[in-house]
Amino acid sequence: MATHKLLLLPGDGIGPEVMAEVKKVVGWLDSHGFASFSIEEDLVGGAAYDEYGVPITDEAMARAFNADAILLGAVGGTKWANVAFEVRPEAGLLRLRKDLQLFANLRPAMCYPALADASSLKRDLVEGLDVLIVRELTGGVYFGEPKTITDIADGQKRAVDTQVYESYEIERIARVAFELARTRSNRVVSTEKHNVMKTGVLWKQVVSEVHGSEYGDVALEHQLADSCGMQLVRNPKQFDVIVTDNLFGDILSDVAAMLTGSLGMLPSASLGGVEEISGRRRALYEPVHGAAPDIAGKGIANPIAMIGSLAMALRYSFGLGEAADKLEAAISGVLADGYRTADIYSDGMKKIGTSEMGDAILAEL
Amino acid sequence: MATHKLLLLPGDGIGPEVMAEVKKVVGWLDSHGFASFSIEEDLVGGAAYDEYGVPITDEAMARAFNADAILLGAVGGTKWANVAFEVRPEAGLLRLRKDLQLFANLRPAMCYPALADASSLKRDLVEGLDVLIVRELTGGVYFGEPKTITDIADGQKRAVDTQVYESYEIERIARVAFELARTRSNRVVSTEKHNVMKTGVLWKQVVSEVHGSEYGDVALEHQLADSCGMQLVRNPKQFDVIVTDNLFGDILSDVAAMLTGSLGMLPSASLGGVEEISGRRRALYEPVHGAAPDIAGKGIANPIAMIGSLAMALRYSFGLGEAADKLEAAISGVLADGYRTADIYSDGMKKIGTSEMGDAILAEL
Ligand SMILES: CC(C)[C@H](C(=O)O)[C@@H](O)C(=O)O
Ligand SMILES: CC(C)[C@H](C(=O)O)[C@@H](O)C(=O)O
Repeated sequence: MATHKLLLLPGDGIGPEVMAEVKKVVGWLDSHGFASFSIEEDLVGGAAYDEYGVPITDEAMARAFNADAILLGAVGGTKWANVAFEVRPEAGLLRLRKDLQLFANLRPAMCYPALADASSLKRDLVEGLDVLIVRELTGGVYFGEPKTITDIADGQKRAVDTQVYESYEIERIARVAFELARTRSNRVVSTEKHNVMKTGVLWKQVVSEVHGSEYGDVALEHQLADSCGMQLVRNPKQFDVIVTDNLFGDILSDVAAMLTGSLGMLPSASLGGVEEISGRRRALYEPVHGAAPDIAGKGIANPIAMIGSLAMALRYSFGLGEAADKLEAAISGVLADGYRTADIYSDGMKKIGTSEMGDAILAEL
Repeated sequence: MATHKLLLLPGDGIGPEVMAEVKKVVGWLDSHGFASFSIEEDLVGGAAYDEYGVPITDEAMARAFNADAILLGAVGGTKWANVAFEVRPEAGLLRLRKDLQLFANLRPAMCYPALADASSLKRDLVEGLDVLIVRELTGGVYFGEPKTITDIADGQKRAVDTQVYESYEIERIARVAFELARTRSNRVVSTEKHNVMKTGVLWKQVVSEVHGSEYGDVALEHQLADSCGMQLVRNPKQFDVIVTDNLFGDILSDVAAMLTGSLGMLPSASLGGVEEISGRRRALYEPVHGAAPDIAGKGIANPIAMIGSLAMALRYSFGLGEAADKLEAAISGVLADGYRTADIYSDGMKKIGTSEMGDAILAEL
């Protein structure tokens, strides 16, 4: 049996707590013969900064390049508010995304039936909701140069960020979106601001070209990013796959996640291209939720998004679809049994903590 | 009695239809001695492009500079999808904003009690909602240079947009937000992505400085734009005033508007600075909703946001607070009487068209 190289980067805030539950699950899968894992662990984000003065070390990056898959908890927190921009916690995550060329960020926004009442939206608007946001992750305003703050006259400063997209970056993310749509409801909404931004003009044009030449069977609609934000609130079930750039994807995927009422439940995958020689696809899996410093260390964080991220890794990086199914079924089972962490608790349910939720999932396995 | 110079720019889509109702109201105010108006009208957007090949003419700009206030309907539509970027309909609106230096865009997101059930959100989350988004309108990625698409190798293109902010632009919009907060619930949330963008770093820093030196009595919180999008969905009533940049403001104000269920009801104001000599403040008022080409020409658009924009003009540009109150009371009265356009119709109400809604408001006056 092949040994799968897994790198764990717990990061900051509730990251280490939810990662601890993943370790239990990995141990279980290993000892029950589902797969053999070799696990490494390292620091990222504020945790790495506190230890080494950088948000990710070159050694950790080397481990990341060497891993079959990476699981990341979360980075950031008010503790590092005054750290220089270049070494802020988030820079560790951004370096991973950029250097590993993890250009395709898949963010499913699904509403778990048992949790539909936790949504802000009326039940009929979100029940059965299943939107997949495909966010470009290695381009746009996150990485474009120049990106500077300079002193100008009289104590005034001038800050600049640059949003850059080249055709090939849009082509490859469009393909990912269309391919995924074919495995789902075959509909893609592409989102930009072509009425205001040149990158939006190119985005719309390239997505239309890829569609016309290779994916005419998939229904394609273009929506402006502001309209898309509105439509997500008005009627989220109109969407199947949404493809968008790095910055719009950041905001719209958070809005979509919050619509479901299941934020603590949502995993995500950040995928690179398939490498020519090894046939391997670099991949990082992380919860959609952030570091949540306000509840860190209290043992009350919901580990399901993190464990769900492991399930995605099993399926997409390790070819262990069966184990992934089993793990996801265990999560559903625990919810059906009424177990809830504080974020998803409602009257009549059984309120439990992070570690108990991990144990409940193990017991269900 | 002073004569107020009002420029009407109906624009595209449903713009002319809802502007026609404003004209009725202006005529009524004039003939009932509330104020004396001199009205000019011109084309903007696709309508101007079709007539003159540009989305706003220099003559129309001269009229805009000369007006005490401008009312604009909406610009844009699929009809002009293939028009060159420089002369697209939106460029007319952007030129007005930029050349008149209308840097402060006030977008109230209020939930009308009679319409709370039209919201996607559960009633208790939006009932009584009253958020004011203060959006920077003349800077950021909308106007920064370079803004280009260039051919690179092998048929590939490279698109660039540039987000630029200088300290003074952030200072003046922060002041507007803090001043407005003092007339409301005295709380400001400032929103950016300082963890990823240098403009976000400067934004946060300058807002904090303005706060510390001049507005220590106002409660200030910083939220990342993605979190703010989430929080708007989770619990919109936590907000009083939100201050943010041009692009985030575009998306977040649309999300906030849609939360209320009252999109067709929401006016907005775009204000310049107070001019040294005349003491005048340039101002443009427009609905938050867009051109809605799909329902244009059908006589079913809701004119209330447009008429509400006139009410804002009466109050902020003409010092006619009493007339503004009267007009807003008439709108409330008509809603209380059960009159509804299609967008806000619900069972048991009286469904009417655009022109009938205008007439009902006149009758109520
Ligand atoms: C932590 C931060 C850099 C990151 C981003 O802005 O991309 C986060 O918000 C996300 O969406 O993964
Ligand atoms: C029409 C368009 C240029 C405009 C914008 O993006 O600012 C609109 O969406 C708005 O919010 O007023």
